[in-house]
Formats: sequence, C-alpha cells, structure tokens
Amino acid sequence: MPDAEIIAIGSELLTPQRVDTNSLFLTEELNSLGVEVTTKCIVGDDRDRLADTVHRAVRRSQIVILSGGLGPTEDDVTRDAVAQAIGRKLVYHPEIAEKLEQRFLQMFRKMPEINRRQAFLVEGAEMLPNDRGTAPGQWIEQNGAWIILLPGPPHELKAMFQRQCMPRLERRVPKQYIETLVLRVAGMSESDLDQTIAPVYKKYENPVTTVLAHAGDIQVHLRARCSTAVEATALLAEVGGQIDLLLGDRIYSRNSDPLEVVVGELLKKHHSTVAVAESMTGGGLADRISSIPGSSQYFLGGVVTYTKDMKIALLGVPSEFQAVSREMAQAMATAVRLKMGATYGISITGNAGPTADEGDAPVGQVYVGVADASGATVAERQFLGDRPRIRAFTGQMALDLLRRHISKSF
Amino acid sequence: MPDAEIIAIGSELLTPQRVDTNSLFLTEELNSLGVEVTTKCIVGDDRDRLADTVHRAVRRSQIVILSGGLGPTEDDVTRDAVAQAIGRKLVYHPEIAEKLEQRFLQMFRKMPEINRRQAFLVEGAEMLPNDRGTAPGQWIEQNGAWIILLPGPPHELKAMFQRQCMPRLERRVPKQYIETLVLRVAGMSESDLDQTIAPVYKKYENPVTTVLAHAGDIQVHLRARCSTAVEATALLAEVGGQIDLLLGDRIYSRNSDPLEVVVGELLKKHHSTVAVAESMTGGGLADRISSIPGSSQYFLGGVVTYTKDMKIALLGVPSEFQAVSREMAQAMATAVRLKMGATYGISITGNAGPTADEGDAPVGQVYVGVADASGATVAERQFLGDRPRIRAFTGQMALDLLRRHISKSF
Repeated sequence: MPDAEIIAIGSELLTPQRVDTNSLFLTEELNSLGVEVTTKCIVGDDRDRLADTVHRAVRRSQIVILSGGLGPTEDDVTRDAVAQAIGRKLVYHPEIAEKLEQRFLQMFRKMPEINRRQAFLVEGAEMLPNDRGTAPGQWIEQNGAWIILLPGPPHELKAMFQRQCMPRLERRVPKQYIETLVLRVAGMSESDLDQTIAPVYKKYENPVTTVLAHAGDIQVHLRARCSTAVEATALLAEVGGQIDLLLGDRIYSRNSDPLEVVVGELLKKHHSTVAVAESMTGGGLADRISSIPGSSQYFLGGVVTYTKDMKIALLGVPSEFQAVSREMAQAMATAVRLKMGATYGISITGNAGPTADEGDAPVGQVYVGVADASGATVAERQFLGDRPRIRAFTGQMALDLLRRHISKSF
Repeated sequence: MPDAEIIAIGSELLTPQRVDTNSLFLTEELNSLGVEVTTKCIVGDDRDRLADTVHRAVRRSQIVILSGGLGPTEDDVTRDAVAQAIGRKLVYHPEIAEKLEQRFLQMFRKMPEINRRQAFLVEGAEMLPNDRGTAPGQWIEQNGAWIILLPGPPHELKAMFQRQCMPRLERRVPKQYIETLVLRVAGMSESDLDQTIAPVYKKYENPVTTVLAHAGDIQVHLRARCSTAVEATALLAEVGGQIDLLLGDRIYSRNSDPLEVVVGELLKKHHSTVAVAESMTGGGLADRISSIPGSSQYFLGGVVTYTKDMKIALLGVPSEFQAVSREMAQAMATAVRLKMGATYGISITGNAGPTADEGDAPVGQVYVGVADASGATVAERQFLGDRPRIRAFTGQMALDLLRRHISKSF
C-alpha cells in the first residue's frame, strides 16, 4: 500500500495563531483509499527549504501532496521549489493564461499582470483545473512517485482534490475496502454518550470507533477495513445496529448529514414550512437553515428581534412579558408562525452573555419554543460556556426540538 | 538570530481528527525571544523516519525541539531516534530510575519494569526534570545546535519549557523584539491589493509582509524584528504609513479587529443603531453583527425575508418589484429602517445559487442597500464561487458599505 506525505506551504501557518487544517481533510480522503499519512510538514515561503523538503519526501513516499503557495505573488514559491527539487524547468502555458484572463473578464476586471505566473507548470505536469479560484493545480509523476500541487484556500483545495485527484488515485491505488458509518447525535453530552456505547465498541478492534463532540453535536465514526466491501458493510451493520439500539431517536442522522439537512428533508417530505423568531442567536438559526441549497422550498424567513421593543413591534407580544422567559418564547413562536403563514414557528430567547445585568436572566439561560396549529411548547435549558458556544448549543437544540416535534407528529 | 524547527512525534497526530497544538505554544514562546519557527513536522512512531527528520533539522537549524515519544512503551521512539540521528549512544542513569521509583511509591504503586526506559539519556544530554509526569526531558548540544526533547502531554510540555528551557534560551539568544501590525482591507481582490502595495513592501526585508485573503476580507501582516522595541515600532510606522497612504479608506482596521467590530464601534461612537433585511444571506449578516458582545447597544434586529411573499408581507415592498433588483434592495433598506426605527437600514437581495431558474437573477448577482434619513443607496455586484462563498462575500460587502457610509456622514 503506498504511503503519503503532506506539505503545507505558507509563513502564516508558522505563527502561533494558525493551524493547517487542509491536511485533516486530505488525511481523511487518503485513509478512505487505505493510504496512510506518514509525515506532515509545514514550511514557510522559503524556496530552498521547501525544495529540500520536497526532495526528501519524493525519495521516501509514493504520494507527496503540497498545499498552498500557488498564488500570483512573489512569496508564492511552490511552483519554483518543486521544479528545483526534481530538476525540471517551469513551462509557460498560454492557454492557461487565456483562461485566467477570461475568468477576470467575467468579473468585469482586467487580469493583473502578475497573475501570468499562475500559467507556469512544472515541465511534464498535468494541469488540474480550479473551478473556484485562479490557481490551477498540478499532477506530476517522478520515478513512480506522484507529486500533487493544490491551492491553499480550503474550498478550492477540497473541490480540486475530490474531483481531480481522488479519481486518479482510485485508479492507481490497490483496492482495500474501508467503509465508514457516521452516526450523529444531538442533546447528549460526550461523556454520557461514551458511557452508553463504550460497552459495545470496546468489544471490537475493527471497526475503529472515534467519538467527536462539538457544541451539542456528537459524531460517532465507525471505520471498518476489510478485504471485501460485503465484509465491511456487514461488520458496520453488526456494530452500528447495537449502538443504534442504545441511542434510539437521539440519533438524528445515519449518513453524516448535519441537522439542518435532516430537518429540511423532514419538512419537504411533509410539505411543511418553517419560520423563525430569534433574539439571542441573532440570525444564526435562520443562517443555518438557509445555508442549505433549495431551502427556499420550506424556509419562509424569520425575524431577529434583538431588543424587547422589537419583539413587541414586530411580533406583537405582550409588553408585560419578560424578554427571557417561557411566556415570551411561547408568544414569539406562535406569532412568527401566524405572521408568516408557516406550518411551524420556532423561537429562541435567552442570554448568551458575556454578562447578565441586575434583573437579567443568568448567562446561558435559554428558552426555545416550537409552535404548530395545535399550540406552542417551550423547552428550557441552562448552557455553560462562552458566547459563541452558548449560541451554537442553542441553535442545535432548536433544530433538534423541531426534528423531534415533526417526527412525533406523523 | 537563530531559527527553530519543531518536530511533533505520534501516530495519533496523523489522523484526520487531531492537530498538533503544542507547536503553537512553543512558537509563541520562541517568537517572544525573537526566534522564528521555519519548519514544523509531524512524524509517526517510526524510528528511522524520525531519525532522518532530526538529522536534517540539526544541519539547518540552530534550535530543534521535539515533543512526544518519551513514554515507556515500545512505540516511544524519540530517545532512540535522536541518538541514531546524531551518532551517539543512550546511557542508563540509575539516579533517574530511582527518582521514577520514588514517584510511583508516592502514588502507592510499584514502578512497572518498562518505565526503566525513561532513565536513558542521549550521551552528553542534560536532564530536564518533569514535575508533572514520568518522562524527563533532555537538552543536547551538537555542533552548536540545541536539541530539546520534551514530553507530549501539553501540561507537562508547557511547564518544562517555561521553567527549564526558556531561561536557558534567554541566556543564549541575543535579545530581539518582534512587533506585528495587521491591516485589514475589504472590497479589493488579493491581486489588486498586492499590485498596489508590493512596490512599498518589496523595498523592505524587515518587516516581513504577508498577505492573507478570505472571501472579501484581506489581511496584510507586517512583522518587524529589531534589537529594541522602539526601533520595531518606528519601522512598522514607516512601512505601515506608506501602505496606509496607498490603500486609504479601504483599510477598515489597523489593529486586527474584524469588520463587525469596527462597524459596531462606529455605531456606538455616533449613538446610532442599525436594522437589517436579508434574503439571500438568510440571517448571516444579523448573525455576524450580533456575534459581538454588547451589540444590543446598536443592533435592533432584522428580518429574514427568504421568499418574495415575505418581502411584501413583512416589509410592504411593492409586489411588482423583481425579488432580486435594485428597486427591491432600495425598498427593503428603507422599509426595515422605518419599521424598526433605526438610524440605518441595510438590505441584501441576490442569488447565492447553486442554480438560477428561467427568469431568475444569475447566480452571484447581489444588490445591497443602505438607507438613512436622507434616502437609500444601492450597490450591485457579481460574485463568483459556490453558495457559502457568495454569501460570505456579500455579508462582507454589506458591512463595508455601512462602514463607509457612516464614515462619510460625519
């Protein structure tokens, strides 16, 4: 089985503030082919040092992936360093320059002269088109090793790797079968979940089980590696089935879909719509729901009533209600549902901190309301953490309440 | 000035779930001495590969720091690999073994036989005591280079580095000062910005200039390294001043604050408030504004009118207006401002994709409106990219329009 090394380029990745996350994505993709990553390096914008690093990597690993340093400026040294490391020239490709010029024209702009640098490929390299940016990637073969140059911005790198590199690797790498099952769970703490399912997963060395937690959202990854696809699938079904039994409807997704997708699919299935009234999450819930392509089929919109006056003015809630209270959440959910003519209304009110004034609700106190034609129910929760974490927990809680509400109704 | 390389050891750091964070702490400490980190590597528990990596690092860098792989088990390979890399033997130190035995006795346990491995030092190494764990560190000098072996657990590594290594480094490293200036710019492409400021920053090797771009948000980092703090500050003022002149009011922040903080400060300063009406960004703009603690002082709220019907019902815009049009943006900004009683109203309408139906606006077409007491102005833009990117660009554009609008008004 071939090994891989990953080299990230950029002086900004050597500061105390930044980590390289592209390599996590690349590792996951490579692992899915059965390829292990044996070394990762981060090198600054220094041509000689990078050339030295590439030179060593190519001698000891079959697959060498570089990310970053393909931009148009002086400090983008990857093209030069790779050419130097493997003793080839850089070749100018007028057809790439022309494509770049067209891209700029589409934005009604003239291409800056320095972008011509991006039309240079290492001699013999295959060009990897970039749908999402100006820097083309490169695929180079050298003494049986594959050297892959990818742009640094994650959304460009991901698309290019998945569309251009994975098919090439799949054809070249001997087939192993790795199957992954991802169960996603809301409304449990990581340690509660682990205590619940550890008796099952500890019985198995294969699949490998990993539990990842993030603000009210837990992912259980089961990774089976077998010599046939049927074996891997059967093994996942055996272990996944036992975990499923223990967690029940706390599992919201069995295919790694996030909660906003699961809720969207439920709403579409039942020809229902939703509208939201948020205060403390400030638009974050609407943002999550509407981030999904096609969400206009079921998402009508929302109001962000960030002050109590706005709750009164926009939603007509009684002025004697406390801003953060059960009554307020109930009134907001009911009002936004009626006002927008939606099947469901969701409301969020609470205090995300960082402070609570005299008479305010304590930091982390949250009320979430869900209204439908038969009335509104409200759930209360007290979250710990800083402002972004409390906001994230609350959005997750609201979406999960809606999911359970819809599932119970049908 | 000496340079440093950091090598993290551990196969678990090569999985898709884990990043090495020890190196961020070490980088911050080293930077405070004026020492730059030029390369970071992560190597699995593989003795030969690690020895190769150390061998190369020692030849090119003055300071080489290794973290992890000092435990008692078979896969703790750091001691052996370093000895192999620099051609020395490992030497057993009975006094270290005795200390380890005492440590176990304090926990009422007998030391497992394998822990004796932790009593081996590279020949000639100075032992670095570990207050928080069993693995002692090592300080090795080789041909003028310093090789530092630290344990992997962050709380052990941090304490050992701060107490044992920093004092040694401070005595040996000539004193230097590093100051950083971060300028943030909106509304320019990375290449336009680089063409504009390269003539200035290319004249200087010190400070080092790095340009980072992310969806309509560009950061210019200037890092000065001088022998006194006053010199560093003066140098940044000299170079920063010239760049400032070229970019003018396209610079929105000179202290690394993000745009939502800058806009918030402007609104507070002028005792003004803002309300937003979004369609295509679906709450993302409100979410960004309200993510800032204390934003309730100036953010009244917003509406997310995700369908045209909602634009009509909530904002009372004329039904004959196209959903994505200049008139619509103007009407939405005016209406939300009046409805919420805000100083400023911002509106966003556009098509974030992924598709445009017959008669729809093309993907990436965006109108942003800003209304105040004297009326509303609208800006139009055509963005390229996928749905999240178009949404991010648009939010940035809207905040920057508001910033310029407020700055011009006073």
